[in-house]
Amino acid sequence: MTEPHRDLAAPPPLPEGGLRIIPLGGLGAIGRNMTVFEYDGRLLVVDCGVLFPDVDQPGVDLILPDFAPILDRLDDVQAIVLTHGHEDHIGAVPYLLAHKPDIPLVGSQFTLALVEAKLAERRMQPYTLTVTEGQREQLGPFGCEFFAVNHSIPDAMAVAIRTPAGLVLHTGDFKMDQVPLDGRLTDLAGFARLGAEGVDLLLSDSTNAEVPGFVTPEREIGPVLDSIFAKATGRIIVASFASHVHRVQQVFDAAAAHGRKVALIGRSMVRNMGIARDLGRLTIPPGLVVGIDEVKNLPPERVVLMSTGSQGEPMSALGRMANGDHRHVTLEPHDTVVLASSLVPGNETAVYRVINLLSRGGATVIHKDVARVHVSGHAPAGELRYLLNIVRPSNLMPVHGEWRHLRAHGRLGVETGIDPDSVVLCEDGDVVDLVDGHARQVGHVRSRYVYVDGLAVGDVSESLLTERKILGDGGFIATTVVIDSVNGKVVGGPTISAKGFSEDPAAFDPVLPLITEALDRAAADGVTDPHQLQQVVRRLVGRWVNEKYRRRPMIVPTVLEV
Amino acid sequence: MTEPHRDLAAPPPLPEGGLRIIPLGGLGAIGRNMTVFEYDGRLLVVDCGVLFPDVDQPGVDLILPDFAPILDRLDDVQAIVLTHGHEDHIGAVPYLLAHKPDIPLVGSQFTLALVEAKLAERRMQPYTLTVTEGQREQLGPFGCEFFAVNHSIPDAMAVAIRTPAGLVLHTGDFKMDQVPLDGRLTDLAGFARLGAEGVDLLLSDSTNAEVPGFVTPEREIGPVLDSIFAKATGRIIVASFASHVHRVQQVFDAAAAHGRKVALIGRSMVRNMGIARDLGRLTIPPGLVVGIDEVKNLPPERVVLMSTGSQGEPMSALGRMANGDHRHVTLEPHDTVVLASSLVPGNETAVYRVINLLSRGGATVIHKDVARVHVSGHAPAGELRYLLNIVRPSNLMPVHGEWRHLRAHGRLGVETGIDPDSVVLCEDGDVVDLVDGHARQVGHVRSRYVYVDGLAVGDVSESLLTERKILGDGGFIATTVVIDSVNGKVVGGPTISAKGFSEDPAAFDPVLPLITEALDRAAADGVTDPHQLQQVVRRLVGRWVNEKYRRRPMIVPTVLEV
Repeated sequence: MTEPHRDLAAPPPLPEGGLRIIPLGGLGAIGRNMTVFEYDGRLLVVDCGVLFPDVDQPGVDLILPDFAPILDRLDDVQAIVLTHGHEDHIGAVPYLLAHKPDIPLVGSQFTLALVEAKLAERRMQPYTLTVTEGQREQLGPFGCEFFAVNHSIPDAMAVAIRTPAGLVLHTGDFKMDQVPLDGRLTDLAGFARLGAEGVDLLLSDSTNAEVPGFVTPEREIGPVLDSIFAKATGRIIVASFASHVHRVQQVFDAAAAHGRKVALIGRSMVRNMGIARDLGRLTIPPGLVVGIDEVKNLPPERVVLMSTGSQGEPMSALGRMANGDHRHVTLEPHDTVVLASSLVPGNETAVYRVINLLSRGGATVIHKDVARVHVSGHAPAGELRYLLNIVRPSNLMPVHGEWRHLRAHGRLGVETGIDPDSVVLCEDGDVVDLVDGHARQVGHVRSRYVYVDGLAVGDVSESLLTERKILGDGGFIATTVVIDSVNGKVVGGPTISAKGFSEDPAAFDPVLPLITEALDRAAADGVTDPHQLQQVVRRLVGRWVNEKYRRRPMIVPTVLEV
Repeated sequence: MTEPHRDLAAPPPLPEGGLRIIPLGGLGAIGRNMTVFEYDGRLLVVDCGVLFPDVDQPGVDLILPDFAPILDRLDDVQAIVLTHGHEDHIGAVPYLLAHKPDIPLVGSQFTLALVEAKLAERRMQPYTLTVTEGQREQLGPFGCEFFAVNHSIPDAMAVAIRTPAGLVLHTGDFKMDQVPLDGRLTDLAGFARLGAEGVDLLLSDSTNAEVPGFVTPEREIGPVLDSIFAKATGRIIVASFASHVHRVQQVFDAAAAHGRKVALIGRSMVRNMGIARDLGRLTIPPGLVVGIDEVKNLPPERVVLMSTGSQGEPMSALGRMANGDHRHVTLEPHDTVVLASSLVPGNETAVYRVINLLSRGGATVIHKDVARVHVSGHAPAGELRYLLNIVRPSNLMPVHGEWRHLRAHGRLGVETGIDPDSVVLCEDGDVVDLVDGHARQVGHVRSRYVYVDGLAVGDVSESLLTERKILGDGGFIATTVVIDSVNGKVVGGPTISAKGFSEDPAAFDPVLPLITEALDRAAADGVTDPHQLQQVVRRLVGRWVNEKYRRRPMIVPTVLEV
C-alpha cells in the first residue's frame, strides 16, 4: 500500500489528460465527506458533508471541510453530486453555496428533497438536477453514470465518472443487503459491467472494512420489533435516525399489526417522514399516524411514539423525555423504549445516560446490545471483497473511514489482487493524480477542520480548543492588580477571581500577599512593563497552585496602569 | 420491584436484631463499590473502590465513595472485606485508611497483595487477614464465609454474612466460566448449600444483566491469539488490563509456542505480574520474559511486548507508543498490536484514537470488534438466572451496575420467582434494613461523588464542574475596569482578556466603548457598588456576545476601586 507522503506541499500542475482527485474530507474521520475531481480545468464535487464534534472539540457545533483549496475556483465547479441525504454527505452544502449559490446540485429525488428542505430553512433555493439510477449525465468534461446502492436511507447512489483520463467509480455509502425492504439492490450487475469496461480507480466506503462477514438484512429487524410489540403492556417509544425511512417503515408495520397508532415526535422526524411519504418512499396505512395531541386520549397500549434522539442528544425528543422536560410526553413506568439505531462512536456516554435515566424512571429500554434492533448501513469486509472482485479496479482509494478502516480496506484490496502500489492510502487534503492509469499522490493542500460555533464559521482554531480543554479540566485563576503608571507601585488589588477551581472563598488568601511582594520586588528591580509584570504574577501563581494543589488551572494575570 | 423512595431522609434507629445495609457506592454507576453492613452497633464494610471520571467530570482524577455516613463511626468498623483486587473494589482503601489506618483488611492472598502494594506507595502498612475459599471467620457479630468465584482476576471471592438477622450472600464480581484457565470455578455447589440453608438477601453483580446468554470461556481466546501470532511477521504488542493474569498467561503461552520472548511494559503490568508469579498465579516458562533492553537486540519476529494502555490512556505505555513518545519502543509498520481487553464505556474516543494512531503508523491493530480477543468478566443474564435459581434468595438487591443493569437484574429476579416486592432497587446512600426476613428501604444517607483532583479530596463540587463545563464549551471573557472609589468614574480600563473564545485581537473593540458608556450611565444613576457595577458589565457583555456570536462564554467582570 502506498502511504501518504506527509511532507508534500502544493501539487505540481495537473498533467494534460490527467484526472486529479482531492479528498477534502472523509479520510481519517467518519464525516464531512467531500471529494473534488479535476479534469481539464473543471471541477466536480462529490458530496459536501459535516463532521460532528467529539470531546476533543468542546463547544463546537459542526465541523466543515476546508473549502480553501477551491474557494478561488468556484466558477470552475461544474456541479456538486450528492450520493445520498445523510448529514455527513449533504450537511455542508449550505456553507459552500453561501460562497456561490448557483452551483448545481445533482442527486436522487429523496436526496435533493432533504437538501432543499435544509436550504429552505436558510431561505436558499438551489439549482438542482434530479437523476435516477441508470441515468447518464455529462457534467462538463465529467461523464457521470449513476447506480443504485443499498444503504440506511432511500435513494442512495454510486457514481461512475468517465473522463479521457479513465473510469472512476465512487461507491458512496453502501452495503449489499440481498433482500432489501424496498427491493432496491446495490447494482452489482452494473458494477460488473464497469469492471468489464475497466475501472481505473475505485473510491469505496471503508466504514466497516474491519468488521468480518456480511450485514444482517434490515428486514430481520421486523420480527424483533414484532416480539417487542407483542410483549409491551404500555406505550412504546421508538427512537431512530430521522432519515432511516426503512426502519421507520418497519415500526409502522409493527404498530399496524398490533393495533397501535403512531405519533411522530421531533422536528426532523416529522419533516423527513413527510418528504418520504410524499415521494412514495414510506407507506402509511390509512389512519395509522396521528398527532401528538391525539395519542394523549388513547390508552397506552394503543400508542407508539416514533422519536428522534437515538444518539442521546439532550435537546432531542427522547433526551427531553428522559430528562422529564418534554412538552408533550411524560415517561411512565410501563413504557417500553426501543433505541432502534446504531451507537455512533463518541456518543456512548450520552446514549447510556439517556438509557439509565429512562431505566431509573421505570421504563424497559431495549437497545442494540440487548436485541437485534439495528443493523449497520455499511458493507463489512465480506461484502467489500465481493465489490472488489467484481469491479477489479486498477487502483483503490479507500474513503469514508478513520485510519483503522482505511488500512483494513486497503488490506482487502491487496487480498483481492490489487497491486499493493496501486492501493493509495490518503488523508484529507492529499492530492492524487490519475495519469496513464496510475493513481499516485502528488501533493497536499490545506485541509483543516473548519469549526462552526454559534454564528462563526472558521473562527475557532485548534489553539482555542486547547485553551478550552485547559479551562474545562482545571478552570482558571484570574488575578488583577492596578499599578501606578509612574512609579509602578501597586495601588489596587491584587484581587483573585477563580472559576472551576475551588469553592473555598479563602483559598487564595495565602497567595495574595505573595503577589504584592513579588510585584514590589519587580518594581524595586525597575520592572514596570505591565506585560513583564503579568509574567511575574503568572509564574508566581502557577508555581503556588502546583505546589499546593498539584493542579494546572489556567493563570490569567491582568496588570492595569492608572 | 420496589423502587427507591427518593424523599426519605436519615433512617430511623435499626430495630434490634435487624441487619442494616447501606450501599455507599456501586449503584447507578459501575465503580466505587462499597457496601456497609451494620448489626448490633458494629459495621462491616465490603469493598472500597474508586470510580473513574467521564466527560461529565472534567479534570477529575478519581471519584470516591462518600465516607461521611460512617466517618464518626470508624471505631465500630470491624473490618473491610475485599472481594477482589480491581480498582473499583480496592482503589479507595488508602483514602478510608487515611482516616483510621488500623481497620483490618480481609481478603484473598492476591487481593491483599495488590492492595498492600498500593498502600506501600503511600508508606502505609495495613492490618490484614488473609482468607481462602471455604474459610469461615467471625468478624465481630458478622459470621463470614468465603466462596471462590470466577472473574477476570485471580482469587476473587463471594462472601456470605451470617448474623441473627439472617443469611446474606454478596457475590462480588463474578461469572461462571465452566472451563476456567485456573480450574477455579464459581462455587455453585457452595451457593446451593447456602440456598438450602435459606438465603435471606442476595446482593449480586448486575454488570451484564442486560446481556443475553452465557460468557465465552476465557480459554477460547488462546486459539485466537495463536492464529494472530502465527500470521504476524514483525513484533507483536499486546495491551490488556494489568491485573488480568489469565489473559497475560495466554499471551505468554502463545509467545512460547511461537518462539517469541516477552517484555512487560508499564509500571502496573510489571508490578502485578511480579506479584502473580510470586504467588503462583502466573506460570512463566524459563527464559520467556526478558527486559525491555534485551528485546531491542532480538529480531522483531521474536518479540512480544505485553503492555498497559488498553483503555487508550494517553500516558500509558501503549498510549505513548501510539503518540511516538515512548522512551523504549518506536512503532514499526510491520508491528501487530492486539488490544486484548474490554472497551470500558466512556473510553471509546480515547481507545479509537490510539487504534487510529497505530493504524496510521502502519501497524495492524486487532481489537475486540474485529476478533475474539476479549471476553467479559461478568455473568450475563443466562448465568445470573442459574445463580438466582440455585440460591433462591428471599430478597434480591441488584448491585454493581448502572440503572439499566440494576433494573434488568431485578427483572431476572422476578422471572426466577422472587416476589417483586422483595426485589429492592436502590441507589447509593439508600438504607435498607433486613428485619424478620424482609428487606426494605427505610432511609437515605448522604452519598455524594467525592472527587479527587490533584492533592485535594472532596474540594471539587458539582457546581465547580458545571463551571468547568461552561468554560470548556465556550471559554471566558474577562473584563477589568478600575473606578475611582470617590466618584465612581472609570479611571482604568476597560480591558478584556478572553480565552477559548476568539483569536481575533480586535474582536472586542466594539464592546469596550459600550462598557464605558454603561458604567458612566450607572455612575450617573448613583450606582457605585463594585458588585452592582460588575452585574452591569456582565449583562452588557453577555447580551452583546449572544447577539453577535450566538455563544455563551462565561463572563467574568472585575471592577476594582482605587
